[in-house]
Amino acid sequence: MPYQTPVKDMQFLLNHAANFDAVRETGAFEDLSPDLVEAVLTEAGKLADNVFAPLNWDSDQNGARLENGQVYTTPGFKEAYQQYVEGGWNALGFSSEFGGQDMPQTLALMVFEALCAGCLSLAMGFSLTTGAAKALFASGTDEQKKLFLPKLVSGEWAGTMNLSEPQAGSDLANIKCKAEPVGDGCYKIKGTKIWISYGDHDLTENICHLVLARLPDAPEGTRGISMFLVPKYRVDEDGNVGERNDVTIVSIEEKLGQHGSPTCVMSYGEHDECFGTLVGKEHEGLKNMFVMMNAARIDVGTQGYAVGERSFQKAAEYAHDRPQGREYGVKSGPAIPIVQHPDVRRNLMTMKALTDAGRAIGYASIVAYDVAHHSSDEETRRAAKEREELLTPLSKAFPTERVMEVTNLGIQIHGGMGFVEETGAAQFFRDSRISAIYEGTTGIQAIDLVGRKLGMGAGKLAYDFIEEAEALAAALSGSGHDGLGSIGENLQTALSGLKETTRFMVAAMAEDPETGLTGATPYLDQFGYVAGGYYLARSAFAAAGLAASGEDEPYHQGRIDVARFYAENLLPRATGLIPSVIAGKGTLPSADSQLFSA
Amino acid sequence: MPYQTPVKDMQFLLNHAANFDAVRETGAFEDLSPDLVEAVLTEAGKLADNVFAPLNWDSDQNGARLENGQVYTTPGFKEAYQQYVEGGWNALGFSSEFGGQDMPQTLALMVFEALCAGCLSLAMGFSLTTGAAKALFASGTDEQKKLFLPKLVSGEWAGTMNLSEPQAGSDLANIKCKAEPVGDGCYKIKGTKIWISYGDHDLTENICHLVLARLPDAPEGTRGISMFLVPKYRVDEDGNVGERNDVTIVSIEEKLGQHGSPTCVMSYGEHDECFGTLVGKEHEGLKNMFVMMNAARIDVGTQGYAVGERSFQKAAEYAHDRPQGREYGVKSGPAIPIVQHPDVRRNLMTMKALTDAGRAIGYASIVAYDVAHHSSDEETRRAAKEREELLTPLSKAFPTERVMEVTNLGIQIHGGMGFVEETGAAQFFRDSRISAIYEGTTGIQAIDLVGRKLGMGAGKLAYDFIEEAEALAAALSGSGHDGLGSIGENLQTALSGLKETTRFMVAAMAEDPETGLTGATPYLDQFGYVAGGYYLARSAFAAAGLAASGEDEPYHQGRIDVARFYAENLLPRATGLIPSVIAGKGTLPSADSQLFSA
Repeated sequence: MPYQTPVKDMQFLLNHAANFDAVRETGAFEDLSPDLVEAVLTEAGKLADNVFAPLNWDSDQNGARLENGQVYTTPGFKEAYQQYVEGGWNALGFSSEFGGQDMPQTLALMVFEALCAGCLSLAMGFSLTTGAAKALFASGTDEQKKLFLPKLVSGEWAGTMNLSEPQAGSDLANIKCKAEPVGDGCYKIKGTKIWISYGDHDLTENICHLVLARLPDAPEGTRGISMFLVPKYRVDEDGNVGERNDVTIVSIEEKLGQHGSPTCVMSYGEHDECFGTLVGKEHEGLKNMFVMMNAARIDVGTQGYAVGERSFQKAAEYAHDRPQGREYGVKSGPAIPIVQHPDVRRNLMTMKALTDAGRAIGYASIVAYDVAHHSSDEETRRAAKEREELLTPLSKAFPTERVMEVTNLGIQIHGGMGFVEETGAAQFFRDSRISAIYEGTTGIQAIDLVGRKLGMGAGKLAYDFIEEAEALAAALSGSGHDGLGSIGENLQTALSGLKETTRFMVAAMAEDPETGLTGATPYLDQFGYVAGGYYLARSAFAAAGLAASGEDEPYHQGRIDVARFYAENLLPRATGLIPSVIAGKGTLPSADSQLFSA
Repeated sequence: MPYQTPVKDMQFLLNHAANFDAVRETGAFEDLSPDLVEAVLTEAGKLADNVFAPLNWDSDQNGARLENGQVYTTPGFKEAYQQYVEGGWNALGFSSEFGGQDMPQTLALMVFEALCAGCLSLAMGFSLTTGAAKALFASGTDEQKKLFLPKLVSGEWAGTMNLSEPQAGSDLANIKCKAEPVGDGCYKIKGTKIWISYGDHDLTENICHLVLARLPDAPEGTRGISMFLVPKYRVDEDGNVGERNDVTIVSIEEKLGQHGSPTCVMSYGEHDECFGTLVGKEHEGLKNMFVMMNAARIDVGTQGYAVGERSFQKAAEYAHDRPQGREYGVKSGPAIPIVQHPDVRRNLMTMKALTDAGRAIGYASIVAYDVAHHSSDEETRRAAKEREELLTPLSKAFPTERVMEVTNLGIQIHGGMGFVEETGAAQFFRDSRISAIYEGTTGIQAIDLVGRKLGMGAGKLAYDFIEEAEALAAALSGSGHDGLGSIGENLQTALSGLKETTRFMVAAMAEDPETGLTGATPYLDQFGYVAGGYYLARSAFAAAGLAASGEDEPYHQGRIDVARFYAENLLPRATGLIPSVIAGKGTLPSADSQLFSA
């Protein structure tokens, strides 16, 4: 059975884990009825299932290639992209002022999820275009907006983000790319950029590169970086595409996965003829880039549960189809489908529960984003903004780390067949590996969490979350419902542990950051497991109510099963991480230890 | 810096984690002086570092290929294999009766480890040859031994193991391959075999296939399987290689990794002209195959820590070479090597500690194997045999599961570069992925542990282990040494948890196997973490003594650091697994749940 977008599960988690009603209650969106949401997701699902998914294997085997300075994508990508643009999918979350559809980012993210599950290496490029559009929307001049935004919103033109250079990856303070003013608001750009996703391709008429570079008088470090709009083809004042700009594709990377996505090394101004315009104020490029960083990180997190879902579906199908072995102790007779072996079901449940936990965190993050941007009530906006800030590193790191376990189990369930590329299980594993790296590695997310996010009000964001979750845990524990009771108790245990490590971490970052930073990644991990447990617990509470009222009982029982499995089997990992958070720098040999000089 | 076999660490763990003295004390080996061990490992290390390691990348990019029915290996493999044979390395662990060197299996395993780290896809093939030789040694006729053993021992000829068929992977009861007696002790073999590692190649003059098949009168199930020796080229009574046997290579698999290792689909008797001879008694093929299964599983576990070590070395080197970022809070100035960031060191230590824990378990297993086979004292043999039985599933599963985390972190430390194939970090990740599948998946190891191994004396093997480890934990806790004290306390906590789950599991397997099997893999995981903690704790105890006596203090402090990091950061995961072991089948939806019908 081919891939099917799990529209029902997505809606369920949207409504009952992430509280989409809060977006409805902002009043900023005209029609967000459940019927509309279902219609949008169903249609996006058709595009994902019928158009994108069949391209996925091909994109791996017949990936992007560079020929005579031009990148060509996998056959079929162009037509699929055309359908994406014509369906208005790229415009979904943008303002109608520029041709958008005025829908919340939440829905745009869910559509993105479906398409990433369909064909990650194609869909991942869309977030660069929407990211570039958001940056222009936030910081561009009226002229830039008029010329570029409508085409970026529709997807007729594509966008890219040019941050990294060979010496500047996680550390953008080292950026060396130069921009020299040549009058008329125009700048000559010169420098090399690496890791440029979709730096070139044949999907669109033009590509708008957003490039971080330094002006001649720029101060050192991150405060001397400006952002420039550098189109592949120059655009005249009427928006017509003209001659080619001096932007060269040096090479594309041979990668572990996502072969369909061209990752480019780009050279700007090799012939000193590369022109761009300033976006936003001088030296504020990084700040402007970070305006959309939260959304970009939530996008990448989505890639984690999108591919996790696909890997799960494939493994579940195989587990039904593959006969092997008999019940324990039975020596002869016909083989049974491996789904009947408890260990295989444990693996499947682990895949499903980790995927749904990541999805629930992702949805909660983007719901918070929408509420923070659109609520008419200032206090609601503030609280939502805090939640968005807290959840962003979790929604980036948790699904992208867990997808490696999920896709690893997907291979395992296939046995030897999982190691054979033709099966496709291994592609999910390979394709996913970058998601914990790009848009800020897991280590960077951890520093964001313990540094910036815990730094706001001395842990207030975390304590607010814990308090909210403890109220739910108490309600579940007192529900008298067998499954919910167990979920509540496990959640409370996990929350107590998180409170302990949060106190530790807030103090450590204030008094001895090295100790805090040593435990930062385990703390991020721990928080991710707990957040996943909380949002799944919310969904289970709702499911129990719906099941009790007789609504689609088998489905809602399944939803309780997922949350309970998670609470009893996976959430305890959070407790196992506590010693690692607090062990601190005492257990970490110094950089000059013999141990590291292998 | 190219790969370097960690001869010092290997010896240290051999002596102080695994107690190699017990092998010396058997008296069965003439000279096992530390000098000899060091000389053997140093020489093997040279072969691994200088000859095998440089082929590794090539083996990935230019893997095995099938042309006109013949498999050709990566250029350079033949010459490297020749050096391996000429150095007598294949013969190391065999009896001098057949040209071997009468060395313990422990040393043979460590040489194998070094060569696997050098080039996994070449070295993994050796264990098939040594395995075939062991099977012939144990069950072959005098004629078979005379004709085949000397060549298999030397490595002039290679061997293969033919178990799996399309419908029979983990479940060998379903084997359909047929053997028909044609007189003179000769049999006609007919059938298809899959996943045949090194099923064909150009490294040796002949290949001896050991094939599981059914005689015409064979009972159903696993008790009707016999083992046959089927040479690629027929061998006359003087041992001369003659005409080709009717063995066809149908295809080789396109795999996620280990491209250098040809994984063959083989057809026996396509033209009804495939002849073989019976090895051992009729219908006892599986039993005879299992004679060497323990050793084969320990071999595969070795592949886990071998590649883990190489991945660690590469990441450690990169962490020293790559400047990025500054100390926390420092906004400008030159970038520092990333090894100075605590999070990077945590990742490196996690890699090192997991690798060493796996290695320590592996060495302890093979030491137990040697003692069980060679001690002159019956009680010592019996105890060692029990330990070998207990440790075998752990030494297979723990390093092969953990190597996925280790190599995953190896990629992470490289950042974006880790996702680029050229870097080489991703190859370790890909190559390793099969090790938790072949020679019995992790799920199969878990069933072996909770079914067969806990079944011996109602948990006796586990309780004996726990008792031994608790004595050490008490000694460490009472040592008054800061690091050892912490190791001891963490170990005791982990052991208490293991005792609890062991009691649970012994009861569950007796009363309700479905509940036991549901928790089997987490129990295996938990046991693996605890066993790793125990053996590393042993090594730390010894290291503290040596350091105190002034012997190479920085080195021995490093050994304590590894054990302490493991005890404080990784061992607590064992406690986090307890709920998952005991949650039982109650949390696992049935096979017909909607959840699994994606």
